[in-house]
Amino acid sequence: MYNFKAFLPTKLVFGAKAVEKLPKEVKKLGTKAMIVTGRHSTKKSGLLDRVLTLLKGADISTVVYDRITPNPTTEQVNEAADIAKKEGVQFVIGLGGGSPIDSAKCIAIATTNEGGIWDYVKVGGGKKPKSALPIVAIPTTHGTGTEADPFAVITNPETKTKIGIGYDVIFPSVSLIDPEVMLTLPKNQTAYTSMDAFYHSIEAFLNKNANPYSDLLAIDSMKRIISNLPIAYEDGLDINARTELTWANTEAGITETLTGVIANHAIEHGISGYYPHIAHGFGLCITGPYLFEHIFDFVFERLARVGREVFGIYECDDKRAARMMIGKLKDFQERFGLNKKLSALGVEKGTLGDMVETSYNAMYGVIETTPGDLKKEDLFKILERAF
Amino acid sequence: MYNFKAFLPTKLVFGAKAVEKLPKEVKKLGTKAMIVTGRHSTKKSGLLDRVLTLLKGADISTVVYDRITPNPTTEQVNEAADIAKKEGVQFVIGLGGGSPIDSAKCIAIATTNEGGIWDYVKVGGGKKPKSALPIVAIPTTHGTGTEADPFAVITNPETKTKIGIGYDVIFPSVSLIDPEVMLTLPKNQTAYTSMDAFYHSIEAFLNKNANPYSDLLAIDSMKRIISNLPIAYEDGLDINARTELTWANTEAGITETLTGVIANHAIEHGISGYYPHIAHGFGLCITGPYLFEHIFDFVFERLARVGREVFGIYECDDKRAARMMIGKLKDFQERFGLNKKLSALGVEKGTLGDMVETSYNAMYGVIETTPGDLKKEDLFKILERAF
Repeated sequence: MYNFKAFLPTKLVFGAKAVEKLPKEVKKLGTKAMIVTGRHSTKKSGLLDRVLTLLKGADISTVVYDRITPNPTTEQVNEAADIAKKEGVQFVIGLGGGSPIDSAKCIAIATTNEGGIWDYVKVGGGKKPKSALPIVAIPTTHGTGTEADPFAVITNPETKTKIGIGYDVIFPSVSLIDPEVMLTLPKNQTAYTSMDAFYHSIEAFLNKNANPYSDLLAIDSMKRIISNLPIAYEDGLDINARTELTWANTEAGITETLTGVIANHAIEHGISGYYPHIAHGFGLCITGPYLFEHIFDFVFERLARVGREVFGIYECDDKRAARMMIGKLKDFQERFGLNKKLSALGVEKGTLGDMVETSYNAMYGVIETTPGDLKKEDLFKILERAF
Repeated sequence: MYNFKAFLPTKLVFGAKAVEKLPKEVKKLGTKAMIVTGRHSTKKSGLLDRVLTLLKGADISTVVYDRITPNPTTEQVNEAADIAKKEGVQFVIGLGGGSPIDSAKCIAIATTNEGGIWDYVKVGGGKKPKSALPIVAIPTTHGTGTEADPFAVITNPETKTKIGIGYDVIFPSVSLIDPEVMLTLPKNQTAYTSMDAFYHSIEAFLNKNANPYSDLLAIDSMKRIISNLPIAYEDGLDINARTELTWANTEAGITETLTGVIANHAIEHGISGYYPHIAHGFGLCITGPYLFEHIFDFVFERLARVGREVFGIYECDDKRAARMMIGKLKDFQERFGLNKKLSALGVEKGTLGDMVETSYNAMYGVIETTPGDLKKEDLFKILERAF
């Protein structure tokens, strides 16, 4: 017996040349769009120009907001929303990795609701947005899963709080998911974003609210990542491996929508809120195995299943299979240099306590759904081991 | 490399007591509902009264249309739509098996668009509906998958045409999928509806447009059905088996939404359009194995995969594994008495040709997506073998 809800009103358009379908897919959304993107990569790759040309050909005028940084801030979002209001923008297009797409989602809220975006964050004003501009997502990385979820992550630079928001109004209307645009993703980004997707799936799989729908997608996406990341890491242009990683990431996004992540994401938001130079996917790899060991008694049967179904472990005893799985995961991460200690990445020991406070308060929702009833001291112990 | 679209804007609420969530889930849809149901079973089971009480408690007034028969007709739909217009109904609730829910979808179209429902059927007027009333689905059988798809099947009694329509506007807004209400499903209905779901999945898996998302759900739902139908058939009150069959059916519905069925459904609509006493799921079992044999050369690799992953067949050679799979499927169907010949069910040989004409013309869409480029004579050969 199980009970769950499933809701994903986003139209997913997946495959090579999906970007070309932009004019057809947005024609109902209006004639004035804001493109939200970062400062460099979509210009360098030519993707921004390609999108501008496609929209121009469909008589859609555009405003480009290209000041989004990694770990995008409330200031950027509010600035872009002011422009969108002034220009009469009818829909937003998030073009790039998680940062521009999540920013587009936040801009969509801040444009149609009063106040700034922080008013719609739980630890900010805590208001629920009534509406949002329609959102189009064109991801250029195979991490975050934001193209298939109602979440956005935003950082308040004043308080160093990096927090996720989740509202049905920010499901993208349509997401164009094109593995070809990911071919140029650099080696390290290939690893970080794939592992971000992996952790979405494994955390959803361990979540107290896990259900057969998300389990199915979670296991499948983990298998795709474990098989294909080594190939794409060695040869970024391998389109088959990129396709698998791209779909695995969207699958993981659906999984996250269905069930949600657990405490590893809260801990990581603590880390990269304070140390924005640490990539999200990298941070997840650093603390993930320690979290699994910490809550081992509550999740070993599920870890054993991941061990058997994803890592091919052949072992009857669940506890042994679960321990072997954590070992295999570390070995896998080691191939991409992802088992670093926080101390080696410039984290100062004195900040661990503040990080715990911030993640516990800002991300309590995902701590609550973690088996093992975690307290602040548990998060601190995990961070200490990862230090 | 693969390309596909995925879109399912329905909110699925799954699990025991899902029906109780009706007031909460519909409060945004309005204060006047039409309940569309059949003549007997939801009254006998008490479900209709339960739903009426829930709606009354939420201050939602109701009109009950309870004249839906198996293989519902255009006349019933048009009659109900006239009532809905006159009464100012704001949303419709399909309560029962596929017939009432599909009728509710058709009523939703016929109420907000001009003309009768047949104007919105391809072989009728062929118009595309601009809108539809919001639809709530409460299935009482684990077949059809209509709670998770944009399809409805309707019969024109004048022409004996039984046809499926598919429009995004008739995705249910919300579906309450409660395995407990299926506990009283009789033995034969348990088998028919489960096999209907099985054929949704296997046909989507063989479809030319099959993709990794629908493949995953298709294989998983077939596994659940093969494991659990024998249990629920012997003991209809086994809630675990019912839960698995119920979720398997919704999974199969999602699969159908993602990819669609193939020619077996076209052939079956031909049969039950002429002979409404033959249950849809039964008809699918009669012709399915003959279709698979007929298109064997185009689908044996996929049948082999079903053989290995669903039926546990251990055989390296794909052609041999595929043949073994068809054999296993027939054995499985035999347990529930589903391998009958059409001639034994009152079908007259002289009507086979007319049935082919009707299915080919009315359901060409699903014939087109069947591997093997089927012509009318192919459908005739399949029907002849099944006769």
